[in-house]
Amino acid sequence: MPPLAVPVVTGSVPQDLPCVPGAPRLTQARCEWLREISILDEYGERRSIHIPCERPLTIFVDKRELVTLMTLGVMPELLVLGYLRNQHFIQRADEVESISVDWDVGAAAVRTRAGISDIETRTSRRVVTTGCGQGTVFGDAMAQVETLRLPEPSVARLRQGTLHRMLETMRQQDSVHRKAGSVHGCALFREGELLMFIEDVGRHNAIDTITGWMTMHGVSGEDKALYTTGRLTSEMVMKAATIGVPIVVSRNGVTAMGFDLAQRLGMALFGRAANRHFLCYTGAERFDSEPESKPAPVRVVSSG
Amino acid sequence: MPPLAVPVVTGSVPQDLPCVPGAPRLTQARCEWLREISILDEYGERRSIHIPCERPLTIFVDKRELVTLMTLGVMPELLVLGYLRNQHFIQRADEVESISVDWDVGAAAVRTRAGISDIETRTSRRVVTTGCGQGTVFGDAMAQVETLRLPEPSVARLRQGTLHRMLETMRQQDSVHRKAGSVHGCALFREGELLMFIEDVGRHNAIDTITGWMTMHGVSGEDKALYTTGRLTSEMVMKAATIGVPIVVSRNGVTAMGFDLAQRLGMALFGRAANRHFLCYTGAERFDSEPESKPAPVRVVSSG
Repeated sequence: MPPLAVPVVTGSVPQDLPCVPGAPRLTQARCEWLREISILDEYGERRSIHIPCERPLTIFVDKRELVTLMTLGVMPELLVLGYLRNQHFIQRADEVESISVDWDVGAAAVRTRAGISDIETRTSRRVVTTGCGQGTVFGDAMAQVETLRLPEPSVARLRQGTLHRMLETMRQQDSVHRKAGSVHGCALFREGELLMFIEDVGRHNAIDTITGWMTMHGVSGEDKALYTTGRLTSEMVMKAATIGVPIVVSRNGVTAMGFDLAQRLGMALFGRAANRHFLCYTGAERFDSEPESKPAPVRVVSSG
Repeated sequence: MPPLAVPVVTGSVPQDLPCVPGAPRLTQARCEWLREISILDEYGERRSIHIPCERPLTIFVDKRELVTLMTLGVMPELLVLGYLRNQHFIQRADEVESISVDWDVGAAAVRTRAGISDIETRTSRRVVTTGCGQGTVFGDAMAQVETLRLPEPSVARLRQGTLHRMLETMRQQDSVHRKAGSVHGCALFREGELLMFIEDVGRHNAIDTITGWMTMHGVSGEDKALYTTGRLTSEMVMKAATIGVPIVVSRNGVTAMGFDLAQRLGMALFGRAANRHFLCYTGAERFDSEPESKPAPVRVVSSG
């Protein structure tokens, strides 16, 4: 694997990591993702805040309209590449010749080298997923689970101290979420080191963008851990498994289908993870527990 | 309007509110929506927690497969009815003869009285929405906005004290979220009185279920306010407008498209609303501000 880039925060793409041979040409379309508005608060005061600016991006594959995503548009080409991979339309970057994003018309034109087989059939069935209750996956993505193999617990593990470093790193991020809220973030770590962090209006877009980055640069998932602010639903677990990442950490909780799928795949899932707290839902065999001592009680005293 | 039922919390359907003439026959399919699992925490201790159980529900309209929703399945028939209305497939309850849910096969069979015109064309275009970044609305739902009319600000307003009552009521709910997390809740209020509260794995399902309940019982939206735990994205604002509710309150934030749409519709949007805090993003002309005095500072003293 090539040496990895310095940590990437929202909006910057790693420049010094080489692309895989035959990787697609990408435009580097840019747009604004924050807007300032005036609000009225509970004290009757007017003040300015920032809100996230989502916009529609319609993906055309070989001139055929596939889907419209709503996105902040931070790294739209990588989002599209990762979306295609996570929906199992492509396996590798060299199947795509170019991805051209044009914000004036809100379109991403994907040109493949040899077409996508069976695209008609595979887009005919809609499954609305747990994410917002009504996300979309195409076709029988679940059937792909049987073919996924994650590395053994003996080689792909997480220490409690490393988990703490990850959570502390996330706490320090200067994020859109912190400034404007209403977005989800996703980050890729190796041994507690942040490789990439991206935010979007949906947690799916964030993990798809990370998937696109990994696909573009040939980064494998086996020695990585994913952090997400979003819930661990079945399709989040599935996407992590698709890119080969065996350890997933969320600030949020888990659903039963996400839990079941992670168990079946032998993945480690951590939720409610913030500051020094977490729950290990499943995959404790990948976890080196270094138990905290219980904290001293804290009293809150009002000086008013 | 008929008298409204006592507050409805998750899982119970109001029994004493009459249905509109010609309302569909509904099965009352039931299922479990919580599961107990064992987790490992940061202190190295094993303990039991509950997680929400989502399951797929495939909607068939007149034997034609429409979509598969992932849902907790608390009130699946009302979810389906509300989904059909919010997607503009139907306008009124009497267009549907029956909705039969069978959890053994995860199917909701909808029988309409006269079919749904143009269903082929209207389901051919997919827009993946902001909710999770990848939700789905069919066709040109946005085009419907132009036809929506909300009541004047002089008659549909919210007092700050009423908003406080709403937030206090929500704080006291014994919810799936409180027990298991990973779900979104949506509640319908009239003058600070809770009429219905429902939770699901996605905020869209929750508002769709409330829509189904309103459709079933002929409850109008003009004198109501909606509370949601989810973000105020364009499609949440659109759904509130579709059922005629001019005031929407969220524990979460807003996105630019949600903000723009609410402004265009003349809706009042409140976000970051919890305890006595909130931001009024837009529609302040519907709001009777009763400013709080700023609280005295609080010191935290560790006794450890």
